[in-house]
Amino acid sequence: MADPRFFDRQGPFALGDILARTEFRGVPDASLDRQFDDVAPLENASASNISFLDNPKYLSAFKETRAGACFVDPAQAEHCPSDTLPIVTAAPYLAFAQSAALFYPGETTSEVDVDDPNVYPTAKLGKNVKVSQGATIGAHAEVGEGTTVASNVHIGRGVVIGRNCTLRNSATVTHAIIGDRVDLGPGVRIGQQGFGFAPNPPGYVAVPQLGRVVIGNDVKIGANTAIDRGAGPDTQIGDHCQIDNLVQIAHNVVLGQGCVLAAQVGISGSTKVGNYVVMAGQVGVAGHLTIADGVTLAGKTGVTRDLTKSGTYGGFPAVPVRDWRIKVATLSRLARKRDR
Amino acid sequence: MADPRFFDRQGPFALGDILARTEFRGVPDASLDRQFDDVAPLENASASNISFLDNPKYLSAFKETRAGACFVDPAQAEHCPSDTLPIVTAAPYLAFAQSAALFYPGETTSEVDVDDPNVYPTAKLGKNVKVSQGATIGAHAEVGEGTTVASNVHIGRGVVIGRNCTLRNSATVTHAIIGDRVDLGPGVRIGQQGFGFAPNPPGYVAVPQLGRVVIGNDVKIGANTAIDRGAGPDTQIGDHCQIDNLVQIAHNVVLGQGCVLAAQVGISGSTKVGNYVVMAGQVGVAGHLTIADGVTLAGKTGVTRDLTKSGTYGGFPAVPVRDWRIKVATLSRLARKRDR
Amino acid sequence: MADPRFFDRQGPFALGDILARTEFRGVPDASLDRQFDDVAPLENASASNISFLDNPKYLSAFKETRAGACFVDPAQAEHCPSDTLPIVTAAPYLAFAQSAALFYPGETTSEVDVDDPNVYPTAKLGKNVKVSQGATIGAHAEVGEGTTVASNVHIGRGVVIGRNCTLRNSATVTHAIIGDRVDLGPGVRIGQQGFGFAPNPPGYVAVPQLGRVVIGNDVKIGANTAIDRGAGPDTQIGDHCQIDNLVQIAHNVVLGQGCVLAAQVGISGSTKVGNYVVMAGQVGVAGHLTIADGVTLAGKTGVTRDLTKSGTYGGFPAVPVRDWRIKVATLSRLARKRDR
Repeated sequence: MADPRFFDRQGPFALGDILARTEFRGVPDASLDRQFDDVAPLENASASNISFLDNPKYLSAFKETRAGACFVDPAQAEHCPSDTLPIVTAAPYLAFAQSAALFYPGETTSEVDVDDPNVYPTAKLGKNVKVSQGATIGAHAEVGEGTTVASNVHIGRGVVIGRNCTLRNSATVTHAIIGDRVDLGPGVRIGQQGFGFAPNPPGYVAVPQLGRVVIGNDVKIGANTAIDRGAGPDTQIGDHCQIDNLVQIAHNVVLGQGCVLAAQVGISGSTKVGNYVVMAGQVGVAGHLTIADGVTLAGKTGVTRDLTKSGTYGGFPAVPVRDWRIKVATLSRLARKRDR
Repeated sequence: MADPRFFDRQGPFALGDILARTEFRGVPDASLDRQFDDVAPLENASASNISFLDNPKYLSAFKETRAGACFVDPAQAEHCPSDTLPIVTAAPYLAFAQSAALFYPGETTSEVDVDDPNVYPTAKLGKNVKVSQGATIGAHAEVGEGTTVASNVHIGRGVVIGRNCTLRNSATVTHAIIGDRVDLGPGVRIGQQGFGFAPNPPGYVAVPQLGRVVIGNDVKIGANTAIDRGAGPDTQIGDHCQIDNLVQIAHNVVLGQGCVLAAQVGISGSTKVGNYVVMAGQVGVAGHLTIADGVTLAGKTGVTRDLTKSGTYGGFPAVPVRDWRIKVATLSRLARKRDR
Repeated sequence: MADPRFFDRQGPFALGDILARTEFRGVPDASLDRQFDDVAPLENASASNISFLDNPKYLSAFKETRAGACFVDPAQAEHCPSDTLPIVTAAPYLAFAQSAALFYPGETTSEVDVDDPNVYPTAKLGKNVKVSQGATIGAHAEVGEGTTVASNVHIGRGVVIGRNCTLRNSATVTHAIIGDRVDLGPGVRIGQQGFGFAPNPPGYVAVPQLGRVVIGNDVKIGANTAIDRGAGPDTQIGDHCQIDNLVQIAHNVVLGQGCVLAAQVGISGSTKVGNYVVMAGQVGVAGHLTIADGVTLAGKTGVTRDLTKSGTYGGFPAVPVRDWRIKVATLSRLARKRDR
C-alpha cells in the first residue's frame, strides 16, 4: 500500500462501485458486492487488493499474484490464478488508473499544502535547523539536526530530511525520504508525480503515482534537476551519488551507490542503474533497462538496451567506446573517399 | 495588436518620431508627420500600422499586406503594394524591433509585479480557489473555481487560469490564457519572453515579444519545463497534451491536440506540431517546421525538415525509423569489417 | 585568494594541522610547524599558500609555481621547484579538497542566508530599485539604480548587480558580479557550486568552489538556465551574450562577447568560448576545450576537441558542416544499397 505519510487512502469499496468508475461493465453480478481496500502491483497485492497486467513482460508475476481481482487483457486472461478474479478488458491500465483514483482521490494535489503557516505545527524540526524566509514545511514533515532550509524552499507533507542537509533556494521536495548530508541545489524538484497516464481518447487519464523518492546519505543534486516519485515502487538514489544540474530522473528509476551523472542526463522510467556508474553530459537512457555496475557512458550516449558488463560505452545506439570510435573513423574514411 | 491584458501600448506616434528611434534616415519629408498607432505582422497590419519583411519566405504576405508602412530590404522593395509606404533598409528586423519598443516600452518587465500585496485587489478568484504562502497573483488576473495555487507560485498581470487547475510550487505564469484541469509542475515557466533579438553590433536589440501562451484543457506540464510566449502570434498548446519535465517550447510553437512530449525535448521557434504527435526523450526539432498528425519520434531524434506523413522516425537527421535502423546496421557491419 | 565578499577564510594553519585533515602522513617533521594562510591554484599561489598538481596538462604551471607547498603525484614530484615543498601523494586532488575545506569551512552553505529580514540591512539598493514580494537580498549585496527584482528572487550575500537589470520571478543569484542591463529569466540559477569532487571511496569529497560568476553588460539569460560559479578561477559571460532557456554552463567556463546559445545547450567545465560564437539547440561541448571566435555549431552538435578556426560545424563528433553533410549522405547511400 502507498505510504500513509504521503497518501490518504479512501475505501474500502465494493467492486461494483469501483467498476462504475471505469468503462468496464462485464463482471458477474455475484462479485459486485465484494469489498476491496486498495490497489497494488501484482507482486505485492493481497486478497483484498485490485491489480492489473498490462505489459506481457510481467506475465510471470501475474501467474503468481495473490490479488483478489485483476484487470487483464483477453490474451492473458487464461493465465489468471484460480484465487484471483479476472476482470477482462481491452484497457487494463486505464481501468487500473480509474480505480486507483477512487482509492487515492487527493493524490494529484497532495503536494500542495495550502492554508498553512510557513512551518506546519505538526512538523518536527531537529536542533539547529535553520529555516529562511518564505520556506514552507508541511504537516508531519521531519527535518534532522543541523539541516539548513534556504529561502522559498518547499518541503511537503510527511517528507523526512536527515541531518546536516542543505536545501538551497526555491528547491521543492514532496513524497520523499532523504538521508544525511544531502545537498539539494537551487530549483531542484523532488517527488512530483511522474509521467504516467493511460490513453482514454480523446485524451489521457493520469495514473496515480503512489510511490516515493528515497535518497541515501551524502548525495549531491545540482540546480534545477528533477527526480519524479515512483509510480508504485519507489524512485531510489543510492548513497554518495553525485548528480549535476538539469538532470531528469523518471519514476521508478533506481541508482546504485556512488553514481556520477553530469548535466542534462536523462534516465527514463523504471531503469535500474548499478553502483559507480558514470554518465557524461546529455546522456539519455531509455526506460525499463538495466545498467551494470561500473559502466561509464561518454557524453551524448543514447542507451537503448541493457548494458550487462562494466566498461565504457559511447554513441547512439550505445556500443563499447572502442567500437564507436571505429564506426566514426569508418564513416569519415568513406565520406572522404566519396568527396574526392 | 497585442493583447491589452498583458501589454500597454503607447502612441500614436508620427513616423518621424518612430524613425528617430531607428538607424534609418531615408524617408521623404512628406511622410514624416503621418501617424501610426501600432506595429503588426504583415498579415494583420492595417493602414495605421508599421510592419516588416525580413525573411523572403514571407514575400507573398508582403505583396498582400495592408500595412501603412513596412521596413523592407532593398532586394524585396519592388514588391511593395501601392498603398504601403516602403521604408527601405538593410536591417528591417532591427528597425522593427526599435519601433516596436517605442509602442511597447514596458514589455520587457511587464511580468514583474512589484509593490503588490500577494494577491492584487483587482484579481478575480473563483470559488474554492486555494492560494498558499508566498504566491503572488497580479492585477486583473483571473483564477477559476477550484484551482489550487501552491506556495511561491507567481501568476502575472492579466493571466487567465481555468477551473480545477493545479499550479505546483514555485511555478511562474505570465502572458498566458490557460484552460480547465491543467496541471503545472513545480518550477514550470510559462509566458516569459522568447529568444528574439536583432543584431545591432556590437550587440543585439531585443525584439518585443507581443504574443501570449494559450493552453487548452486537460494539459499536464512537468517540472521545470519552459514555454515562451509568442513573438507576435501566440504559442499554443492543444487540449490533452502531456508534457514531461525540463522540456523547452520556444515562441510561436503550436502543439495540436493530445501530443506527448517526454523529458528534455526541445522544439524551436515557430514550428507547428500536429495532433497526437509523440516525442521521446531528448528529441530536438528545428524551427519553422511542420510535423504531421500522428508522427512518433524515437528518443534523441533530431528533426531538421518537415515531416509530412504520420509514422515513426528516428536518428539525426530524422528518417523513417526503419531506414535509421538500416543505417545503424550498415555502419556497424562496415566498421566490423574494417576492424578485422 | 577567494573573494572575501563571498567566502570567509579561516587560518592561518600549521602544515601539521592541515595534513591532519587529509589522509597524508609523510611530511618531514621539520615542516609541520610551517604556517600557511590559503589555498591557491598553481599560477597564483604565493609562498604562504598550498596548491596541487593533479592533471599533467598543467605541468608547466607546476614547474613555475611559487606555492609554498604543493600536493603532487609521485610521477611529477621530480619537477617541483626548489622553493616549493612537495607533498607527494597518490591523491593530490583529494588532499587539496580536504585542505581547502579547512580554510573555507562554510563554503558549502554560504549561499543560504537565514534568519534574515527579506532585505538585509547592510545591502545597498540604488535609486528606483523595485523589490517584489518574497524576494530576499543578502548581507552587503549591491543592487544598482533602476533594477527590478521580481517575487521570490534570491540575491545572495555580497552579490553585485548593475543598473537597469531585471531579475525575473524565482531566479537565484549567489557568488556573482553582474553588469548593467542584464535580464535574468524566471528560475535562473547563477553562482551555485559547480560539479567538483574528489573520489574518496566509498564516496566523494566536495572540492570547495572558490570562484565567482562574472557577467558583463547587456546579457540575457533564459528561464531555468544554470551557471555554476568557478572552482577557483571565475566563470565568465561576456557583454551582449544571449543565452536561452535550460542551458547548462559549468564552472570556469568563459564565454566571450556576443555569444548566442540556444535552448538546452550544455558547456562542460573550464571550456573557453571565443567571441560571437553561436550554438544551436541541444549542442554539447566537452570540458577543457577552446572554441575560436566566430564558430557556429548546428543543433545537437557534440564538440570533443578544440575548434581553432571560425566556421560552421555539425555532427558528433563535430566536423565542418560540409563534411558532416557528406557523412550523412554517404551513410544514406550505403544503407539504401544494402536495403536493396
